[in-house]
Amino acid sequence: MGNTTNAVGSNVTAVNVNHLPGLNTLGISMVRIDYAPWGQNTPHTHPRATEILVVIEGSLLVGFVTSNTDNKLFTKYLEKGDVFVFPEGLIHFQQNVGNGYAVAITALSSQNPGVITIANAVFGSNPDISDDIFARAFQVDKKVIDEIQSKF
Amino acid sequence: MGNTTNAVGSNVTAVNVNHLPGLNTLGISMVRIDYAPWGQNTPHTHPRATEILVVIEGSLLVGFVTSNTDNKLFTKYLEKGDVFVFPEGLIHFQQNVGNGYAVAITALSSQNPGVITIANAVFGSNPDISDDIFARAFQVDKKVIDEIQSKF
Amino acid sequence: MGNTTNAVGSNVTAVNVNHLPGLNTLGISMVRIDYAPWGQNTPHTHPRATEILVVIEGSLLVGFVTSNTDNKLFTKYLEKGDVFVFPEGLIHFQQNVGNGYAVAITALSSQNPGVITIANAVFGSNPDISDDIFARAFQVDKKVIDEIQSKF
Amino acid sequence: MGNTTNAVGSNVTAVNVNHLPGLNTLGISMVRIDYAPWGQNTPHTHPRATEILVVIEGSLLVGFVTSNTDNKLFTKYLEKGDVFVFPEGLIHFQQNVGNGYAVAITALSSQNPGVITIANAVFGSNPDISDDIFARAFQVDKKVIDEIQSKF
Amino acid sequence: MGNTTNAVGSNVTAVNVNHLPGLNTLGISMVRIDYAPWGQNTPHTHPRATEILVVIEGSLLVGFVTSNTDNKLFTKYLEKGDVFVFPEGLIHFQQNVGNGYAVAITALSSQNPGVITIANAVFGSNPDISDDIFARAFQVDKKVIDEIQSKF
Amino acid sequence: MGNTTNAVGSNVTAVNVNHLPGLNTLGISMVRIDYAPWGQNTPHTHPRATEILVVIEGSLLVGFVTSNTDNKLFTKYLEKGDVFVFPEGLIHFQQNVGNGYAVAITALSSQNPGVITIANAVFGSNPDISDDIFARAFQVDKKVIDEIQSKF
Repeated sequence: MGNTTNAVGSNVTAVNVNHLPGLNTLGISMVRIDYAPWGQNTPHTHPRATEILVVIEGSLLVGFVTSNTDNKLFTKYLEKGDVFVFPEGLIHFQQNVGNGYAVAITALSSQNPGVITIANAVFGSNPDISDDIFARAFQVDKKVIDEIQSKF
Repeated sequence: MGNTTNAVGSNVTAVNVNHLPGLNTLGISMVRIDYAPWGQNTPHTHPRATEILVVIEGSLLVGFVTSNTDNKLFTKYLEKGDVFVFPEGLIHFQQNVGNGYAVAITALSSQNPGVITIANAVFGSNPDISDDIFARAFQVDKKVIDEIQSKF
Repeated sequence: MGNTTNAVGSNVTAVNVNHLPGLNTLGISMVRIDYAPWGQNTPHTHPRATEILVVIEGSLLVGFVTSNTDNKLFTKYLEKGDVFVFPEGLIHFQQNVGNGYAVAITALSSQNPGVITIANAVFGSNPDISDDIFARAFQVDKKVIDEIQSKF
Repeated sequence: MGNTTNAVGSNVTAVNVNHLPGLNTLGISMVRIDYAPWGQNTPHTHPRATEILVVIEGSLLVGFVTSNTDNKLFTKYLEKGDVFVFPEGLIHFQQNVGNGYAVAITALSSQNPGVITIANAVFGSNPDISDDIFARAFQVDKKVIDEIQSKF
Repeated sequence: MGNTTNAVGSNVTAVNVNHLPGLNTLGISMVRIDYAPWGQNTPHTHPRATEILVVIEGSLLVGFVTSNTDNKLFTKYLEKGDVFVFPEGLIHFQQNVGNGYAVAITALSSQNPGVITIANAVFGSNPDISDDIFARAFQVDKKVIDEIQSKF
Repeated sequence: MGNTTNAVGSNVTAVNVNHLPGLNTLGISMVRIDYAPWGQNTPHTHPRATEILVVIEGSLLVGFVTSNTDNKLFTKYLEKGDVFVFPEGLIHFQQNVGNGYAVAITALSSQNPGVITIANAVFGSNPDISDDIFARAFQVDKKVIDEIQSKF
């Protein structure tokens, strides 16, 4: 099992073209996600793939947000065996909502789907994006942005 | 010219399949962006398209962040006539870095590219994503999240 | 769990665009396969998709045959957690090689991958393909073909 | 003319990317098939292409079987000049149903379509697929399978 | 046989999605071309497909011109059985270079390839393109353009 | 600004994969076109891309001709800020219809769209296409063709 002793309480194990070169041109890859109790796979996107998920163990709260047309949040509680889909490029997340461990298997419609964890890409880029940009985007004081950036 | 009297100081005018049905299946669309002095097109992604940009008026600071492999920030100062590309699905932004107005024309490799403004999708979804999710993702106190969410 | 009390000792539960219309255009689907002890998912192809498989429970012998260039058989014994890929359109199979039940999750690179079970399509089509065709193709007496066809 | 003095009484001459490298990325290839009287192009699939066929000489019985939804056999008698299509990945065949030679030209929607002759891939793979697999798949005695395998 | 008693001495018989709706989404179509002695299939392009051609009867001079990089003309004399390819969107033609009839079968990598006969589209559009445009493009007197346009 | 002192009174500045290798696989490119008063971008096609155009300066007459189904000419007068689309592979042109300079920005749905200027490819290929071909295609005397070819 993946080691979930980390800040977000989850662990992602991917099998894509970087791990299995034979997947090249085949348009598919797979991921196993382990969740500690109340652990999360925090909000992220896959720039080049749709993702389909099945719960193998435990129960999850999953969700995604549509694009700017309405920024609508869709969520669902999933039990073992339930399936859900995250359309290409949309921001999505999963949270273990039980007191035990949870496990999900997901597949992505690309051998090289990429993953962009919002918190890391936004506040933990290397180098940092200017706090000037974020203060206006998020409409908060620069000190708040600086504090968040210091965590990444 | 687009009205840039708003919180972020920019205005996006799009021509895609929603405005011009004849674009259907043709795989392309166009956008004009007007920037007030120091205005921004805040961090966002296009879930289904690469974007190419040319500066028509003024000068811009543009940037994008790569995916989790390294979350590297690439930025460049662009003058009138300069061209830049934002690869599909990556988080990117532009900022007017001059005292006058600026204008850019961009094109996207889909007739229906979509746009996800990070701040809006993350903190302004409808309904809100639980502050529980964000406190852990962004590693800040829930009060900070609640404050940001109240702005959207 | 799927009911595996049948001639081949396996059960396939699919989630594709026929079951979940929202998958349309998203290019992915998922399958759960349950295997009785020594049960098989008999030789078949997916006409429009590559398949990736992970073992959730038990151990499997999996294999595929390349195209006419050399008709080479690739096989591998998989334990729980192991991953394997069947390239688009190639004939492949899985066999439970343990005394307990086995379970696999697979994903396919199309929302509408299709499945062609060789034995059914070849010997159980409706109406039957002429035994004339098969006697020559398989280089056996027509009686052998007639006998096999009578089973489907 | 292709030499049709063989077990199945037909000869396939292909022009694809392996013979004409300039076809690379162009998404098309061509095939000429010669049929001795009553000769066959035995049941096969193309894992990566749809095929369209026109009869140049003689008359043919052609057919294909749909996927597991219903395993329906579609057949048609074609005279010189008639056209037929075999959708991507489906099992299909042609048989010369006249006493003279027959010729067909076909084209495939890929520069590298591949071809899987069912009898060869199933019973003539290298090494053999275990007769265990086939006895159950085809619901016959292993001796029947062994006999067929010995021909390939 | 197609009727070749016309100004260009050739006849095109197409089988595409407009004639055979079942071709939809399958990405292929077919064409038979009959040529009177010295007849031509005059310069044209297919906006959405590559074309592969085989000579069934007679001998042909075939050619295509590359794009503006060098506008290079590639030509070849083809005898019965020879194969040639015209890459997507390039201007190409065939001419019967024998005293008898000639026949070719071609296939295109789209069920809806389209065809643009240069002379017709340029000089016979409905309504006419202004002779102003052509006088400059072809660097000739408007009277020459007017004369050519009057033929279409 | 591009130098428009040439026979057609226009200048095309492209940014595609030949100028910016990072565009590879990204499916987009951009072009700036400068027009002298009454200058033209003469009839041409892009073999692998749709094009979208916006007028930055001045006013343009733009048009395209549909394929052989009807060879219909669509034209429109565009002022600064107007947008128009030229579907993949169709013959199209632009003409500056004002006494001042004009500028357009266009984008194409491929990083390697190609461009075929009809006059150059038809009458200026290297070597020349036989006047025999064109006399029949354009239904004019060979001397007219020879005269036009001598200009290129």
